[in-house]
Amino acid sequence: MKNKLTLTICFIAALLFSSNGFAETTMSQEGQYIFNTLGFYLGGVLVAFMAAGFCMLESGLVTTKSVSTIAAKNIGKFAIASIVFFFVGYNLAYGIPEGGYIGSFSIWRDSSDIETGYSGYSDFFYQTMFVCATVSIVSGAVAERIKIWPFFIFATLMAGIIYPISMGWQWGGGWLSTLGFSDFAGSTLVHACGGAAALAGVIVLGAREGRFSRSGESKAMVPFAASSIPLVTLGTFLLWFGWFGFNGFSQLAMGTFDDVNAIAKIAVNTHLAGAAGTVTAAVLTRIIGGKTDIVMMLNGALAGLVAITAEPSTPTPVLAMIIGSGGAVIMYYGTKFLENLQLDDVVGAIPVHLFAGVFGTLVTPLSNSNTSFGTQIIGVVSVVIFSFVCSYIVFRGLKATIGLRISKSAEKLGTDHAEVGVRAYAIRD
Amino acid sequence: MKNKLTLTICFIAALLFSSNGFAETTMSQEGQYIFNTLGFYLGGVLVAFMAAGFCMLESGLVTTKSVSTIAAKNIGKFAIASIVFFFVGYNLAYGIPEGGYIGSFSIWRDSSDIETGYSGYSDFFYQTMFVCATVSIVSGAVAERIKIWPFFIFATLMAGIIYPISMGWQWGGGWLSTLGFSDFAGSTLVHACGGAAALAGVIVLGAREGRFSRSGESKAMVPFAASSIPLVTLGTFLLWFGWFGFNGFSQLAMGTFDDVNAIAKIAVNTHLAGAAGTVTAAVLTRIIGGKTDIVMMLNGALAGLVAITAEPSTPTPVLAMIIGSGGAVIMYYGTKFLENLQLDDVVGAIPVHLFAGVFGTLVTPLSNSNTSFGTQIIGVVSVVIFSFVCSYIVFRGLKATIGLRISKSAEKLGTDHAEVGVRAYAIRD
Amino acid sequence: MKNKLTLTICFIAALLFSSNGFAETTMSQEGQYIFNTLGFYLGGVLVAFMAAGFCMLESGLVTTKSVSTIAAKNIGKFAIASIVFFFVGYNLAYGIPEGGYIGSFSIWRDSSDIETGYSGYSDFFYQTMFVCATVSIVSGAVAERIKIWPFFIFATLMAGIIYPISMGWQWGGGWLSTLGFSDFAGSTLVHACGGAAALAGVIVLGAREGRFSRSGESKAMVPFAASSIPLVTLGTFLLWFGWFGFNGFSQLAMGTFDDVNAIAKIAVNTHLAGAAGTVTAAVLTRIIGGKTDIVMMLNGALAGLVAITAEPSTPTPVLAMIIGSGGAVIMYYGTKFLENLQLDDVVGAIPVHLFAGVFGTLVTPLSNSNTSFGTQIIGVVSVVIFSFVCSYIVFRGLKATIGLRISKSAEKLGTDHAEVGVRAYAIRD
Repeated sequence: MKNKLTLTICFIAALLFSSNGFAETTMSQEGQYIFNTLGFYLGGVLVAFMAAGFCMLESGLVTTKSVSTIAAKNIGKFAIASIVFFFVGYNLAYGIPEGGYIGSFSIWRDSSDIETGYSGYSDFFYQTMFVCATVSIVSGAVAERIKIWPFFIFATLMAGIIYPISMGWQWGGGWLSTLGFSDFAGSTLVHACGGAAALAGVIVLGAREGRFSRSGESKAMVPFAASSIPLVTLGTFLLWFGWFGFNGFSQLAMGTFDDVNAIAKIAVNTHLAGAAGTVTAAVLTRIIGGKTDIVMMLNGALAGLVAITAEPSTPTPVLAMIIGSGGAVIMYYGTKFLENLQLDDVVGAIPVHLFAGVFGTLVTPLSNSNTSFGTQIIGVVSVVIFSFVCSYIVFRGLKATIGLRISKSAEKLGTDHAEVGVRAYAIRD
Repeated sequence: MKNKLTLTICFIAALLFSSNGFAETTMSQEGQYIFNTLGFYLGGVLVAFMAAGFCMLESGLVTTKSVSTIAAKNIGKFAIASIVFFFVGYNLAYGIPEGGYIGSFSIWRDSSDIETGYSGYSDFFYQTMFVCATVSIVSGAVAERIKIWPFFIFATLMAGIIYPISMGWQWGGGWLSTLGFSDFAGSTLVHACGGAAALAGVIVLGAREGRFSRSGESKAMVPFAASSIPLVTLGTFLLWFGWFGFNGFSQLAMGTFDDVNAIAKIAVNTHLAGAAGTVTAAVLTRIIGGKTDIVMMLNGALAGLVAITAEPSTPTPVLAMIIGSGGAVIMYYGTKFLENLQLDDVVGAIPVHLFAGVFGTLVTPLSNSNTSFGTQIIGVVSVVIFSFVCSYIVFRGLKATIGLRISKSAEKLGTDHAEVGVRAYAIRD
Repeated sequence: MKNKLTLTICFIAALLFSSNGFAETTMSQEGQYIFNTLGFYLGGVLVAFMAAGFCMLESGLVTTKSVSTIAAKNIGKFAIASIVFFFVGYNLAYGIPEGGYIGSFSIWRDSSDIETGYSGYSDFFYQTMFVCATVSIVSGAVAERIKIWPFFIFATLMAGIIYPISMGWQWGGGWLSTLGFSDFAGSTLVHACGGAAALAGVIVLGAREGRFSRSGESKAMVPFAASSIPLVTLGTFLLWFGWFGFNGFSQLAMGTFDDVNAIAKIAVNTHLAGAAGTVTAAVLTRIIGGKTDIVMMLNGALAGLVAITAEPSTPTPVLAMIIGSGGAVIMYYGTKFLENLQLDDVVGAIPVHLFAGVFGTLVTPLSNSNTSFGTQIIGVVSVVIFSFVCSYIVFRGLKATIGLRISKSAEKLGTDHAEVGVRAYAIRD
């Protein structure tokens, strides 16, 4: 009798605890695993859109006779970077010993387990799209005079070795991470790294023929007019949306209350930083030049997005807007600065990604009290110098051996004619 | 012995109930929270694509000499609307007392808690993309003659005050909501509201120079030929896909069996309404004009999508197609009607968003028995008049002060030359 | 006393089991339902992007005087295929008896239940996007000479009857499925089926006027130059990203550890196969023709993606790359082969979708031990012949009755002028 009562109470208790515990405790482990993996997958797809974004942006900004070439470089680099990252880069970046400088060369094999919290394939997928973004930053800057295949060789080394090593210093648990450096989604590890490589390329290649006059002033831009502003705008929009995945899923998890909250806040901060960058550039160009320069607005949006990337999770939305705005100011004066130096960055990749990326990383301590200005400087300087020096060596090596730049006559005809053999536009009335 | 038996049974019972209860009862609260927040996030990203869609649609439909300007207006308004909505609009719309008319001005601060069911940031993110869509509707209609900065000022007031107030009447729990008005995803609150503002702008601005002859007939359209049909088509596709987020996640929750079912049904109804609108416009133009007019097909798709937006969750798919088809018919004759009135709506925003939006809202009672024709009329009329009158006052005020329209000589040169200083296309053979 | 102890232990046991069982056992049934439905929804949205991708690809590859027409065909077919699939196709494909040949004609009605594991609407949504993709394959191949409305009639029959029948043989549980044929995401059921229909259309229509000289050699391509390479590239990127949904969610479930792992692996394999196809085509064209042909690179990407579609879940990433590379080789030589036969496939749909699709299906046994070369051949041959013969009959029937091809004078003017009445581009300096 008593036992029956006990049993009954027990049943009720079991029932209560099971349903109660269910309703109030945390997400199941399997549920978390699915959310985290889905997060990497969605993030990867969104960042993949950035590859199309870069391609449209660059296709629109180059002159009409280099559009097929830039398209070939963009789809080619998307493919090459992914393959090389699979065979080499991913292992170099993540096979690093704690506090170390370089990982081991091996072919990555998935060992996902419910205990690991997410599918290893999904992480690889997401990280692959990041390396593609890094390499994309370079292709626009060096457009209209670099040969396709030397560029592909550079892309191979960038995706396989240069980016993975310095990225692994932080995200792979290497020495920068041990030191306390912080770069949430890659203002430095992706953007400044890519921008520094672009700077090396621009220096080694020299400017396009006729881009700067002998007296040192920038010639009227008309012969170098952007082929299609709507494509540049489309590209910027695609990059902006891709950034929701780039920054949002850099949280690296989605299966808990705290993680999904962080993702939502990151989306808002990222969006508002981009918005502030856009408006800042619009105001600057209107006041200084008298016209509302659409290209500067688009690069302002991107500079704002780059600047917030180092720390999109801790600032208030108002601070995020200030950081985005600062990125756009840096980009604006950085563009003038490069022109004065007669450095011919066709799409403005260096001011957008290098300058705004460095700025964003350095202002991280404004909202993230776990960072310090000192370690941020060390991180930025070491990654930028590493990327610049390695890239410089690669570009110089290519120049000295198989050649890096198309001939003057080919440049006059345009890279499309000389290298791809397909005219970009055949629009007739 | 008996106790041991009891214990054993108890263990088994606990095990059964826990796993059983687990398997058969509802999703955990945390799981629901994650799904809901993810839903807002995904919805927001999809609706963001609509900003790119509007930009491509409008870039393609304006003449070649206003393309850079429309791009600048689109990215600029995307940025401005988001910032203003953060500081003012969101608070006005949602800080409204129950049954009230206007919210309080304050800076929104997140107070997410697992009890609220979703991240406040994610809701803000999603709603921000809606205000961007509303403002986008206006920019195409007034293209090719409005100055950029007065448009930006209008966008500021639209996103900060006009849209949030009338939207809050319903979605913020204001008087229309208390009255029993129904507008699931915004046929009236977004589309008719934006379309009414566009109508005010078109009336105040007047038609483009030479668009209508003195005798009142529409001139041959050739001087106003759309610059790029593929971009218009791309824009329409992007809008269409964005609509899956626009309507789908207006369910505002995804963490239960019923919510996710609703989202799936909404996706189907939305898609089929757009499809029916497309086919209807194709048939109409083929029969009436002899040619299968691609621009009308695209606007037919959009009109179908606008019409189903007021109630995509209750109709059967067959009714959804009928509603979408009706939207396209309204759009077709509405376009002719506006032309007869010599109202120069460059992209057809008014017939698509205002006329089809009103239609869609009024037919809601066909499937949703909680609505009545009377309250639907009250809702539509009050929102449309409010938006039209406020926008008219703003446009007139701008015209009377800083000026709204570019000079005749500037219009001849094109807004790109006069206002942006960047040529849209530089395509040479 | 003992009883109290028992009770206490029982409580603790209940507590442990409930929370423990919760944390370690499977996802709740409702959670699985939500994940699965969300998966179909997300997959559907991603595959919808393929419609825009096909449209951009085809718009870019046709000559400038057929761009409006191809846009009209793409949006029209997207709409028509969806409507017809709702009324007829979906029922034919899934209303099939086990091991049978054809389903019943009826209007599908949703009967979702938590036991079914996902929303019926979400499945319909996802499958609808597949039929749209299938019909898209045809429109590019027959471009620039087919009349719009006969094409729409063909699209109706393809989406309503031809594709659903042969697709139902496998995915509807028909005779091919009973036989042991395997086609994970549709290398044969979608791509080869669409490609075979395209081949029928190309044969019945004949080549564009002047495309091949009398002596049998392909004329210089200049008069048939692609109108816009950046749009072709954009289209390919959109198709690529859509493929993550096309292949990934063909897993048809996401709510378990195993399912989400499969999706992640599929995403990686799909991406790497596309990457390998791109690089292979780049290398081939550079070595054989001396130039790095951007159009071939893009078709190489697509051929790689088509080839891996038959089995993206079982290969290692390395094998996936080999299969993708093989698809590109097949595409390259297949393109030459068709040209030699003077078959005028405007966009290369037949080599990409038919040839690479057949190849991908036949190599499935390399990694999937449940398949055999014999059954794979039976599946491929029966689907390809069925689609080809049915499509051939439809095209011949249309030709014999309402006419299939525009007049020679209309072809000279361009289909845009003759059929749509809207010029695709109006770009002036």
